[in-house]
Amino acid sequence: MSELTLKAEKLDAEDELAALRDRFVLDEVVYLDGNSLGALPVTVPDRVADVVRRQWGELRIRSWEESGWWTAPERTGDLIAPLVGAAPGQIVVGDSTSVNVFKALVAAVRMARGTGGDGRDEILVDATTFPTDGYIAQSAARMTGCTLRPVTPAEVPGALTDRTAAVLVNHVDYRTGRLHDLPSLTAAVHEAGAYAVWDLCHSAGALPVGLDQHGVDLAVGCTYKYLNGGPGSPAYLYVRRDLQDRFDSPLPGWNSHAEPFGMRPDYEPAAGVLRGRVGTPDILSLLALQAALEVWDGVSIEAVRAKSLALTDFFLECVAEYVPAGRVESLTPTAHEERGSQVALRCSPELSASLEQGGTPFAGDVMKRLIERGVVGDFRHPDVLRFGFTPLYVGFAEVERAARVLGETLA
Amino acid sequence: MSELTLKAEKLDAEDELAALRDRFVLDEVVYLDGNSLGALPVTVPDRVADVVRRQWGELRIRSWEESGWWTAPERTGDLIAPLVGAAPGQIVVGDSTSVNVFKALVAAVRMARGTGGDGRDEILVDATTFPTDGYIAQSAARMTGCTLRPVTPAEVPGALTDRTAAVLVNHVDYRTGRLHDLPSLTAAVHEAGAYAVWDLCHSAGALPVGLDQHGVDLAVGCTYKYLNGGPGSPAYLYVRRDLQDRFDSPLPGWNSHAEPFGMRPDYEPAAGVLRGRVGTPDILSLLALQAALEVWDGVSIEAVRAKSLALTDFFLECVAEYVPAGRVESLTPTAHEERGSQVALRCSPELSASLEQGGTPFAGDVMKRLIERGVVGDFRHPDVLRFGFTPLYVGFAEVERAARVLGETLA
Repeated sequence: MSELTLKAEKLDAEDELAALRDRFVLDEVVYLDGNSLGALPVTVPDRVADVVRRQWGELRIRSWEESGWWTAPERTGDLIAPLVGAAPGQIVVGDSTSVNVFKALVAAVRMARGTGGDGRDEILVDATTFPTDGYIAQSAARMTGCTLRPVTPAEVPGALTDRTAAVLVNHVDYRTGRLHDLPSLTAAVHEAGAYAVWDLCHSAGALPVGLDQHGVDLAVGCTYKYLNGGPGSPAYLYVRRDLQDRFDSPLPGWNSHAEPFGMRPDYEPAAGVLRGRVGTPDILSLLALQAALEVWDGVSIEAVRAKSLALTDFFLECVAEYVPAGRVESLTPTAHEERGSQVALRCSPELSASLEQGGTPFAGDVMKRLIERGVVGDFRHPDVLRFGFTPLYVGFAEVERAARVLGETLA
Repeated sequence: MSELTLKAEKLDAEDELAALRDRFVLDEVVYLDGNSLGALPVTVPDRVADVVRRQWGELRIRSWEESGWWTAPERTGDLIAPLVGAAPGQIVVGDSTSVNVFKALVAAVRMARGTGGDGRDEILVDATTFPTDGYIAQSAARMTGCTLRPVTPAEVPGALTDRTAAVLVNHVDYRTGRLHDLPSLTAAVHEAGAYAVWDLCHSAGALPVGLDQHGVDLAVGCTYKYLNGGPGSPAYLYVRRDLQDRFDSPLPGWNSHAEPFGMRPDYEPAAGVLRGRVGTPDILSLLALQAALEVWDGVSIEAVRAKSLALTDFFLECVAEYVPAGRVESLTPTAHEERGSQVALRCSPELSASLEQGGTPFAGDVMKRLIERGVVGDFRHPDVLRFGFTPLYVGFAEVERAARVLGETLA
């Protein structure tokens, strides 16, 4: 047994969250892609079956009231709230992340203009963002008469002016795994009189976010990564309580009306975060997500964060040991305060160039071979191997095995 | 046995679609609310269980390719297409109806302006619409610099001018069940150089729509009524093939990109109707809907329409026989060409006034009592009893029973 195998055993033995793995359906595969699609929680299949067979099949239309379907978006939001540091009543679940980015960003611009900032006509967007945020921000800018200015998160403070209406930033970079400084960036945005919209897709469920504590204005996130809601499960929208009265949605569907069943021709927004709702909620997916969120019972996000850092630290240590020098470099920051819950390894330019397989990027080919050997991460164009570490179900022996297989593949 | 009971027996015996009822999970309840939430098709529970347990639970991330998740929005659209008279490649499924109304209406305005109609700055909206369309149309108008003008569908031809950019109309009125004249209204809209957006929520799956045949520009619809997709199942968007290149979405999420996994900072829309996609598709609900659409195998929408009219004719006949004169009046047109697949009965003002139960509208109380007696329709504020007839699973004996129980309740 190697030293690292022994260390893995010791870390697993000391892992206070180790038992949580039983809350998921897993097998012998080392699944390091929970930052793309979380594993299936064991409670979900029976819950979904009940929703389909009994709530829909037997109660049918009565379930809108009797099974609590109608209020599922806000109730599910309240289940997510403690994971992102939000008091209840500030999150609704529904629609995709893209649609929620649109709602949040347009609403942020309207808030900025509503507070005497009529001249505010610029949106800053994270230049390193997962592309959909940039595309949607472009549309939000176009439809609110703003210009869109892409800047890196580090450049945000210097780019803020009295023309800035809103700033859209990712909490964790989807590609590199870099964790951005939410408290100080939010403070800088506020200092400039603008509104901050945070995309939590790659942080929620992996580390503390502290939305309320840091005064974040609006936030969005998906639920199918570290929240394990299932493929394409609905996203969420956070609107800070004291801003809810000023949340002016560009998608004022009937579900956001003060009296949805009044069937009134005139729109009157509901009180509170309910005005972030749009159309009829997608019940199957929402209730699957509700069941999935039960894996968090009794789990503190601080403990999750501690294990996440231990996992990524250990992975980097194993990679350094097992992968021949110079073959990969980590794009993920070494400093804990700058690291999310993933490690992104860039294949060296020499390797990428010399071994490119008839059109398939080298890194894509490496990931394919890893998957064949039971280590699942993902590939991000053109040369990045991405490994996500879900503290709820990934163990240290798995981390050691993943790095070892990677080393053998790159040897 | 009454004459109507015998007639019901005869009609059921002659009903060529009678056997389709076995494709649904039903019980002794007379379910006349399929125009709100369709009944559960028998194929759905096992399919959903497979999606959850095997596709998500075992294959996990691999299912995006191996289980065809990624292409589900357009493949499901192609399953809906024949039901609304559309050739393949013109429908994508995803998001709510409200979100799709926003996409379609904004895109329609942009199309109108793109064809030399820069001065077009008015949207006409069906004044009798289900409210969400009106709310969303107001937002679309606000965000495209248009004014919104509510008119009844009958008033549309007279209201069209060279300022009209787009017209949003319901195919069937959700309240009265009136079927509007899609071919002639679409032709009038085109004559004026504007674009027609049809909301098919209350017609698709109940009667032929003929989108291609009548040159409809854009259409939206939900899938949880006559398409039986389940509670809050995703809606769909139709973009006529020759307009797809000009479809300029206000919600250009990464799923509508020409190369979604290229992760490019610049947006380039996909070819075809794929540019109507937005974010990550909601797989559980989409694949439940796919399974639900199998009930249409071998079923012609013309046969469905014929039975629908026979059902509503027979219901009106039974109501005339069983309900004491003057207690209700039908808001649903008598003429077949003006009738959808529902009957809306308005309780007489005298009854509504005299019997109002401590704050509960009289009609609401009547519907409650009907439901207690196993006849499920719904109530629409303030005085309407609404009965929907899904030809795939409603029989004539049930229709007779519903009218009889209604008569007894109102006696």
